[in-house]
Amino acid sequence: MPDLDPNRPARDTFDAPVGLAIRRWCAPVLGLPPLPSPDEYLTRRAELGAEEVHQRFLRSAGLEALLVETGHLAADLLEPAAMGSLAATPVHQVVRLETVAEVVARQGVDAAAYPETFARALEEAAAGAVGLKTVVAYRGGFGLDPTRPSTSEVVDAAGRWLSKHGAPRLEDPVLLRHGIWTGAELARDRGLPLQIHAGYGDPDLTLHLVNPSLLTDLVRALGQLRVDVVFLHCYPYHREAAYLAAVFPHVYFDVGLALHYTGPSAIRILTEAMELAPFTKQLYSSDGFALAVFRRSLAAILEDWVGREECSAADADRIAELLGRANAHRIYPIGDG
Amino acid sequence: MPDLDPNRPARDTFDAPVGLAIRRWCAPVLGLPPLPSPDEYLTRRAELGAEEVHQRFLRSAGLEALLVETGHLAADLLEPAAMGSLAATPVHQVVRLETVAEVVARQGVDAAAYPETFARALEEAAAGAVGLKTVVAYRGGFGLDPTRPSTSEVVDAAGRWLSKHGAPRLEDPVLLRHGIWTGAELARDRGLPLQIHAGYGDPDLTLHLVNPSLLTDLVRALGQLRVDVVFLHCYPYHREAAYLAAVFPHVYFDVGLALHYTGPSAIRILTEAMELAPFTKQLYSSDGFALAVFRRSLAAILEDWVGREECSAADADRIAELLGRANAHRIYPIGDG
Amino acid sequence: MPDLDPNRPARDTFDAPVGLAIRRWCAPVLGLPPLPSPDEYLTRRAELGAEEVHQRFLRSAGLEALLVETGHLAADLLEPAAMGSLAATPVHQVVRLETVAEVVARQGVDAAAYPETFARALEEAAAGAVGLKTVVAYRGGFGLDPTRPSTSEVVDAAGRWLSKHGAPRLEDPVLLRHGIWTGAELARDRGLPLQIHAGYGDPDLTLHLVNPSLLTDLVRALGQLRVDVVFLHCYPYHREAAYLAAVFPHVYFDVGLALHYTGPSAIRILTEAMELAPFTKQLYSSDGFALAVFRRSLAAILEDWVGREECSAADADRIAELLGRANAHRIYPIGDG
Repeated sequence: MPDLDPNRPARDTFDAPVGLAIRRWCAPVLGLPPLPSPDEYLTRRAELGAEEVHQRFLRSAGLEALLVETGHLAADLLEPAAMGSLAATPVHQVVRLETVAEVVARQGVDAAAYPETFARALEEAAAGAVGLKTVVAYRGGFGLDPTRPSTSEVVDAAGRWLSKHGAPRLEDPVLLRHGIWTGAELARDRGLPLQIHAGYGDPDLTLHLVNPSLLTDLVRALGQLRVDVVFLHCYPYHREAAYLAAVFPHVYFDVGLALHYTGPSAIRILTEAMELAPFTKQLYSSDGFALAVFRRSLAAILEDWVGREECSAADADRIAELLGRANAHRIYPIGDG
Repeated sequence: MPDLDPNRPARDTFDAPVGLAIRRWCAPVLGLPPLPSPDEYLTRRAELGAEEVHQRFLRSAGLEALLVETGHLAADLLEPAAMGSLAATPVHQVVRLETVAEVVARQGVDAAAYPETFARALEEAAAGAVGLKTVVAYRGGFGLDPTRPSTSEVVDAAGRWLSKHGAPRLEDPVLLRHGIWTGAELARDRGLPLQIHAGYGDPDLTLHLVNPSLLTDLVRALGQLRVDVVFLHCYPYHREAAYLAAVFPHVYFDVGLALHYTGPSAIRILTEAMELAPFTKQLYSSDGFALAVFRRSLAAILEDWVGREECSAADADRIAELLGRANAHRIYPIGDG
Repeated sequence: MPDLDPNRPARDTFDAPVGLAIRRWCAPVLGLPPLPSPDEYLTRRAELGAEEVHQRFLRSAGLEALLVETGHLAADLLEPAAMGSLAATPVHQVVRLETVAEVVARQGVDAAAYPETFARALEEAAAGAVGLKTVVAYRGGFGLDPTRPSTSEVVDAAGRWLSKHGAPRLEDPVLLRHGIWTGAELARDRGLPLQIHAGYGDPDLTLHLVNPSLLTDLVRALGQLRVDVVFLHCYPYHREAAYLAAVFPHVYFDVGLALHYTGPSAIRILTEAMELAPFTKQLYSSDGFALAVFRRSLAAILEDWVGREECSAADADRIAELLGRANAHRIYPIGDG
């Protein structure tokens, strides 16, 4: 998430739309007036301390449950349980396929045993999880062959990969496909959706290669398996994601991080995402930041629709309930709530 | 058209922007208040009966003429003459190239005779027609070689195609190109435009492969033949279509079905379509549904432009006349009206 | 620039959004009321004469300096010095790489000497220049190999190119890459940014092939050289350009000609361009036309943001200063102003 990267000067973050969003919407949660200077904001954060800040943000977001994807292994990230405690909500885990493969490789495995070892490790990692996720977007993008690779292709590719030194990063297209297909079969067996990062993210992806439409053949194959697919973030290809959600019964999407990174323009991004897709197919995700932008933007859009008599107040309530809560309850095994 | 597919539960249609549009704008035409419940709407439709409902919709749309493309051979579709009678307007026919080829194949033909037989069948089918149309978007998309295939290539491809059993669906890229080129030459000889479905449609297309920009080389070739090209629908690539209309004198476009499927967002889609293209190059089409959304959206946009003093009231009238009527009269041989 | 092409009937220009912009915003600068008829406007222009018209437009734009790219060799274009005199501002030159190569070829050179001769000619042409520019967008687009070609590849390609008769147009992909890399090294040595035309332009480009995201690997390589990159125009891929500006520290962009060609929609285009990118990474360019649309659109956007309390009045002033002036001062060696 480039703008919030702690290695970049804070000034960069504040000289961008996300900085306006932070100063406008986060500052009051910390007891500041809206739009303080960056220095005032950072000083106040430091004063309150990380735990108090996180707790205020998470609790003021009014969440019912957290779904946390645990595959990004950074030292300064909280464990899911600690997040749940700060937020005072149940926490559910989503398992990142590529991280499981990298852990398997780090722990040592023969190429011939890789397919079986990965499958077992994934089953274990996903015990109790409510979803799986692939970040193939960051590993070359969506141009990959949509078919399941043969076991011998996988073993050959694993041989090449495992012979490399150092911490292995999974970038081999055959192993990425193998991870997705192994994950898809587990998802089918356990009734879990498969999340797919799409669109805007860090500089190691190439934007036009992560347009969800490029995965249409894989989406068709996952539909044969009856596995639900959730495209996350998607900007600036949220219209393509919404199209897939409109025409394929098993496809869902959200605009995730696009909302806070676009600050004053979040309403318009969400409006575009809501142009075509059924209201039963769009979800909310936060990417762990700025949890209030979605609610505020959705309220503004529905108020506009009601004001223009494009829908009734009861329709608006129903749409908000679907996007904010009911759609997630339908596709994730998180209890009826 | 996925959301109106009779095989899907009606609830899906109503839980989408198109459902809001139907309840908001169609219900009053049936004598209901705006935004009735889906059950109230469906009950009222059933009460009035299909003929009365169709007649009310078609007549309240205030049409001057209908251009009906007859290549989608579904049992529950009305014949053009019956539609004209319901609408109380003249009806003109547009001929779908791929359907003509499939009828030729079904009737039986030698591969060697296919090019000539298809050309004759197309000439006959297009007698009295005002346009031709290709749905290559649904048969693999726009990545195809833009050049005219040689006769021997066509005969070889026809041999492979005609040897298949069952009702033949034309998906061979050589035969699709042959159909387009044969159609283009007939269009040139008779002064007909060639319609091209682009963008959003049924799940058998792959969205990024039906971006009209992918056909730029074919568009250039059709310009050499002096054949007008009309891109239909185009969402979410309406900006690409508008670009082609702006830079190539023989290219036209509309946003067709995008308007009713996006309901509350139709105005913004049409606004985007009107950003760049000359007002002489954009048309209206209905895809057979929701004929009033275009008029209402265009009126809202022009009112906004006049209100912001971006154009005069006379300009707005001229723009509405061009998009709604005069551009179609200029490129289709439908009389001066 | 198709709509202002003197070979097209004026009516085409006026029946497009750009025509509304001309009648609305240019007419008052010539002493006419807003929105005169096309004939009134053209008559008034002729009355005043070209010099007076140009001077009025340039001076009323309130420019501080002009950066003029001199590679488009048309007989009816003013020299930079004459433009500066009309505008009463300093003028700085930007050198088009492909034009330098074409001049070298026209003057005669052996293939073996081409790499060295081109490098020397570019160094001379760029003496005193403040930037370099490539129009590879018009020479096949952005699908080209991002690596530096070897000298023997360049000599071979030069041999093929130079053996052609007539005024040579540089379209060979090896020579285009060689031009870009030679330019990039000169840019690195002299601290100049490299401008890249992207998106909307004349009909000799193919739109989807000039999406800036297609150049991501070249952008990464230029980042290694620490050369600033400025994507110009970018429509309708301004979101992709803004993404590159957001994630790569050395990437900048503008929406240039998109603003005047979209007339009443300019505000929305600029709003989209400002969704994601840091305010330190977006610039203004005019493409030589309609210099006031940017200022007016930016003011409207910032007024909206302040009105919705998404930023403070001081933030708005800072954003306007960055986009309109300070960002250009930071990346172009044009003095501190």
